[in-house]
Amino acid sequence: MKESDAVVLVAASEVDANLYHASGFLAGDPVIFVERGGRRTLALWDLELARGRKEARVDRVVSLTDLARKSGSRNSADLIVRLLGRMRRATVPENFPLGLAIALRKRGVRLRVRPDPFYPDRQVKSSQEVREIERTQRATEEAFEAALEVLRRSRVRGDRLLHEGRPVTSESLRRVLHVALLERGCSARNTIVACGDQGCLPHCRGTGPIRPGRTIVFDIFPQSETSRYYADMSRTVVKGRAAPAVRRMYEAVLEGQELGISKVRSGVNGRDVDAAIRTRFEELGYRTERRNGAWVGYFHGTGHGVGLDIHEPPWLLKQRDSVLPEGAVVTVEPGLYYPGVGAVRLEDMVWVGSRGCRNLTRFPKVLEV
Amino acid sequence: MKESDAVVLVAASEVDANLYHASGFLAGDPVIFVERGGRRTLALWDLELARGRKEARVDRVVSLTDLARKSGSRNSADLIVRLLGRMRRATVPENFPLGLAIALRKRGVRLRVRPDPFYPDRQVKSSQEVREIERTQRATEEAFEAALEVLRRSRVRGDRLLHEGRPVTSESLRRVLHVALLERGCSARNTIVACGDQGCLPHCRGTGPIRPGRTIVFDIFPQSETSRYYADMSRTVVKGRAAPAVRRMYEAVLEGQELGISKVRSGVNGRDVDAAIRTRFEELGYRTERRNGAWVGYFHGTGHGVGLDIHEPPWLLKQRDSVLPEGAVVTVEPGLYYPGVGAVRLEDMVWVGSRGCRNLTRFPKVLEV
Repeated sequence: MKESDAVVLVAASEVDANLYHASGFLAGDPVIFVERGGRRTLALWDLELARGRKEARVDRVVSLTDLARKSGSRNSADLIVRLLGRMRRATVPENFPLGLAIALRKRGVRLRVRPDPFYPDRQVKSSQEVREIERTQRATEEAFEAALEVLRRSRVRGDRLLHEGRPVTSESLRRVLHVALLERGCSARNTIVACGDQGCLPHCRGTGPIRPGRTIVFDIFPQSETSRYYADMSRTVVKGRAAPAVRRMYEAVLEGQELGISKVRSGVNGRDVDAAIRTRFEELGYRTERRNGAWVGYFHGTGHGVGLDIHEPPWLLKQRDSVLPEGAVVTVEPGLYYPGVGAVRLEDMVWVGSRGCRNLTRFPKVLEV
Repeated sequence: MKESDAVVLVAASEVDANLYHASGFLAGDPVIFVERGGRRTLALWDLELARGRKEARVDRVVSLTDLARKSGSRNSADLIVRLLGRMRRATVPENFPLGLAIALRKRGVRLRVRPDPFYPDRQVKSSQEVREIERTQRATEEAFEAALEVLRRSRVRGDRLLHEGRPVTSESLRRVLHVALLERGCSARNTIVACGDQGCLPHCRGTGPIRPGRTIVFDIFPQSETSRYYADMSRTVVKGRAAPAVRRMYEAVLEGQELGISKVRSGVNGRDVDAAIRTRFEELGYRTERRNGAWVGYFHGTGHGVGLDIHEPPWLLKQRDSVLPEGAVVTVEPGLYYPGVGAVRLEDMVWVGSRGCRNLTRFPKVLEV
């Protein structure tokens, strides 16, 4: 950023991690953040003003209501121009709203888009941030343990499972997870509990009865309601005995994941970690290809950064160069998906160090429960 | 929209109601939607493709992976240009990402921003949509009943409440609400349970012990995980006896709300509904003013539309003209806030008809529990 530029962010910080990172203030409706000469200002309507003055981590919180009265306009562009003072240049993120950009341009403000990541330093976590991520991860593991306990206690009745007399379903296990997470101050959305071939659509949440002897993919990625930091973990289990083909697939994914994790350290390209796992899967005879229009094998990325966003840089992807900086927290989550056999995904979160990585995930990997 | 224009939306439909409305497909990461000549196309990476073909309500779902291979680029702007075919004009919403807009302009695509609301017809709910909103509202009411039951059963011990031996707090009541909502397929964030002066910051979520004899503002606005429709309800209660000043304030808010609801019908300006309530509060002696830098009285808007967004048009605000169309669902939620006395807010959701409105909220209004 040039010194003569200001930074302008306009978004609901609840869904915009940059704004939350910059302001420390959580709002469900859009707020205005301006940084000028190193001085960070959050501008709020009076409804939010007192809360903002209490909670925001900025240099000052100003009243949009007052500003609107002085300038005779409640239009966001007019208000931003007032906040910019004599400054007529501003740096904004790629996701800055086009409508507002046009309105600012009409008022003589020149915007420069800084490519993502807007705050590159968000990739490097402080020890406090790592602790928060780990705290969310502990809640994730305790919630998963509660769901596993239901599976362990459930009884096989034909091709169904019963727990306390009721059928065990994706929905009922998701509820156990979500309630346990809530009780630990975390909220989760779109948690995956996908049995059998459902797991072969990697983002399918899963519905209906859990079947004995079939793979069950759990992918749990809650956010702490207090710290706003995410965690992310996937495990695959089978209630009862797994078929030999599933066991082999599980071993292959575990081997791929361990290989990937062994390669993670600062300075490494995430793409190379991804490539190593892909190569190993091919060597083990697991081909990635299209069958009847749908992909089988390993057809998603190996990992992503985790922080205030659930998916953030750096990346471990086939298609993207992304050098891992020291202090990043990334997932390593290979999977294999073959309809008819099942789906296996194993995901840990690791902290990137200079001589290797530290696994932040403690939950063991056991296929049969 | 001119016939020669296409519509382009790029967003994560999980946080962008327009994209969800257009596609019926829920995704946590950005997807591309293009409408051209009345034909709606959703473009997804292969990871999401099979799920998209199953779930999306569009004319076709295409593979971004294939498109990227054909065009030799994975850049979103390049992919959108491919999807536009020979078309070089597109209509986009105000929140279209500026970075992408610049990239498209460089590729010769002219963008026109259609001002909000992008899909004005979203304001008018079908009977099916009203049913979904009511379903979320029923879950809201059942969850609130569960929280009230905790308050009713709790015992006063000094200036605290105990329930089953444990202190009743904003956090514990919020947990009861959220678990009850989860069990009904709804998820809630930032639910307000704010006791005493905390309630005087209308968006403060509330923390710490609930006190007997003090106002407790509940503002509950969950989203159905299946239909994605929100509901919104606020109630104010006191455990034990309310002070005479609180009772008078409650009566005033109730009167203001009933006055507001009596004025809601299609063709009315939301601003006039808001003004009527403000005037009545002044007549009753409740002044809105700044005291020691903080607002007291009635200093937020009267209401908003509810649908796939929790806050959407039409509006019932002091500062904005907004004609209520028949078939809209809006909140009517006046409040009075005086630190030292307490906070009272009452909020119902109503369906806008041509000769009046229908209250979708069934939960009674009782101050003392």
